[in-house]
Amino acid sequence: VNVHIRMLNQRTKFDRGIYDAPAVSHLKALLFDVFGTVVDWRSSLITELAAFGQRRGVMADWPLLVDKWRAAYDPSMDRVRKGERSWTTLDALHRESLGAVVASLGISGLSLEDLNELTDAWRRLRPWPDVKEGMQRLATRYILGPLSNANVALMVRLRKFAGLPWDFVFGADLWQHYKPDPEPYQAACRLLDLRPNQVMLVAAHNYDLRAARIQGLCTAFIPRVTEYGPRQTKDLEAEECWTLVASDLRDLASLLST
Amino acid sequence: VNVHIRMLNQRTKFDRGIYDAPAVSHLKALLFDVFGTVVDWRSSLITELAAFGQRRGVMADWPLLVDKWRAAYDPSMDRVRKGERSWTTLDALHRESLGAVVASLGISGLSLEDLNELTDAWRRLRPWPDVKEGMQRLATRYILGPLSNANVALMVRLRKFAGLPWDFVFGADLWQHYKPDPEPYQAACRLLDLRPNQVMLVAAHNYDLRAARIQGLCTAFIPRVTEYGPRQTKDLEAEECWTLVASDLRDLASLLST
Repeated sequence: VNVHIRMLNQRTKFDRGIYDAPAVSHLKALLFDVFGTVVDWRSSLITELAAFGQRRGVMADWPLLVDKWRAAYDPSMDRVRKGERSWTTLDALHRESLGAVVASLGISGLSLEDLNELTDAWRRLRPWPDVKEGMQRLATRYILGPLSNANVALMVRLRKFAGLPWDFVFGADLWQHYKPDPEPYQAACRLLDLRPNQVMLVAAHNYDLRAARIQGLCTAFIPRVTEYGPRQTKDLEAEECWTLVASDLRDLASLLST
Repeated sequence: VNVHIRMLNQRTKFDRGIYDAPAVSHLKALLFDVFGTVVDWRSSLITELAAFGQRRGVMADWPLLVDKWRAAYDPSMDRVRKGERSWTTLDALHRESLGAVVASLGISGLSLEDLNELTDAWRRLRPWPDVKEGMQRLATRYILGPLSNANVALMVRLRKFAGLPWDFVFGADLWQHYKPDPEPYQAACRLLDLRPNQVMLVAAHNYDLRAARIQGLCTAFIPRVTEYGPRQTKDLEAEECWTLVASDLRDLASLLST
C-alpha cells in the first residue's frame, strides 16, 4: 500500500473505486506543469552549464548560477503579469536574467552567443525517472499535454528532446498570460473543447493547483522534494485536499487505472 | 528510380545531394496540411456514415452526402475569411453544413444528437497507407505538426485516433484565420521560433503551397489523386516548381534522407 496516495477527504484508492469517484470519472485530458513537475530543471541545467564551462575553460560556481537564475524566474514573469512590461516570452526572460546573473557573479569570458547557447539549455531538460513510463500509461486513456509558462517554441523542443508522448503543446505565448493568471487554465479547456471538470492539472506546486481549481479543473499533486536541490523548503507536500495526490507519475497512472 | 521525384528546376535527387541543396539544408520543421494530405477524409467519412445508417436503419446515399458536405466546406470558411461572419471553428461549420445537406437530400430520422455524433466522424479519419512510416521517419530529424484549418480540439482527437507522431498541434482557432490567409503560415513560424525558410509546408493542394511560399516557407507537394474520389479533377499534379515533389510521405522521407 502506497501511503502517499490520498483522494478526496483522504480516502485511499481502496475505499472506493477510482472510476466510481465523481471527481475523476468524466476526466478526458491531463495538463502537466513542466518545470519541476515533469523535468528536473536544476540538475539538468547544472550538468549542461558545468560541461560548457569545462569545454570552454570558464570557471564558475554553476549550481549557484543556476539557483540565482531560477530565483529571477518568478519576479521576471511577475512584471509581465502586473502589466509593468509588455508580453515577453520565457525564452526572452531567461536570456535577460542570465545576463544579469552572470554579471552579478562576476563571471567573465562569456560572449553574447555563449549566453544564447546557455539559454537554450532550457530546451534540453531531463524528465524525472518515473515520467516516461507514467506518461505512456496515462496516454493510453487520456489526452495529454503541457500547461507551462514556457513559450511554444521552447516546449516543442523540450518535448522532442525528452520524447514525451503529448497530444498537443500549449505555450504561454498563445494567450500571453503567465500562470497563475486565470487565462491559461480557461483557454486550455476552451481549445480542447472540454469542460473544466473534464480536465486535470498535474503539478508539483500548490499555487498552480489552487489557480486551476478556482477555474474548475480537477487537480493532482505530485511532490518533487528535490526540485530546488537538497535544501528545498516549499511544496514538500499537498497543502490542500486536491482531487488526487500521487507519489509520482507512475503512481498517478495506477490511481487512474492505466 | 522514382520518376515522381522532382526538385528545384526538375532536378532529380541524383543530380545533387539533397543536403547540399540550399533549399532544404536549413530545414528544421515540417508543417502538414491534414485533410487530404495526411488523412483520407472521404472514404473514412463514407465508412463511418454508412455504418451509422446501417446500425440505425437510416437510408441515404452516403457517398453523395459526404461529397455535398465537403463541397460546403470551402464556401463556409470563405464567409469567415471575408469577414461576412465572425470567427467560427471548423467543428461548428461542419455541424451547420451537415444540417443543411441532410435537409437538402431529404434524409429523415436523424436527431440533433445524431448530427452531433456524425460531425464527430471528422475526429476519426484514417491516414493514407504511407503516412505512419513516412511520419515516423521524418520525426527522427524534424519537428513535425499540423497546419490545418481544423480547430485544436478536432486536431488533437484526430492525432490521438490516428497515432500521428507530431511534436505540436496548431489549430485555426489559435489565430482565427483560415488558410490561405497569410496569418496561419506567419503565426506558425513565429510560435516555433523559426524563420520561414526553416519551415516546409507539406500539402496535396497547390493553392496551400502557393500561400505558404508567399510567406517564405519551403514547400513539398504530395499528390493525392483519389482524395475527392475516382473522378477527381484538381491537384492531380504539382502546378509549380515546389521545393520538393514526392509521391507520398515515405518518398518524402527518403528525399529528406530520413
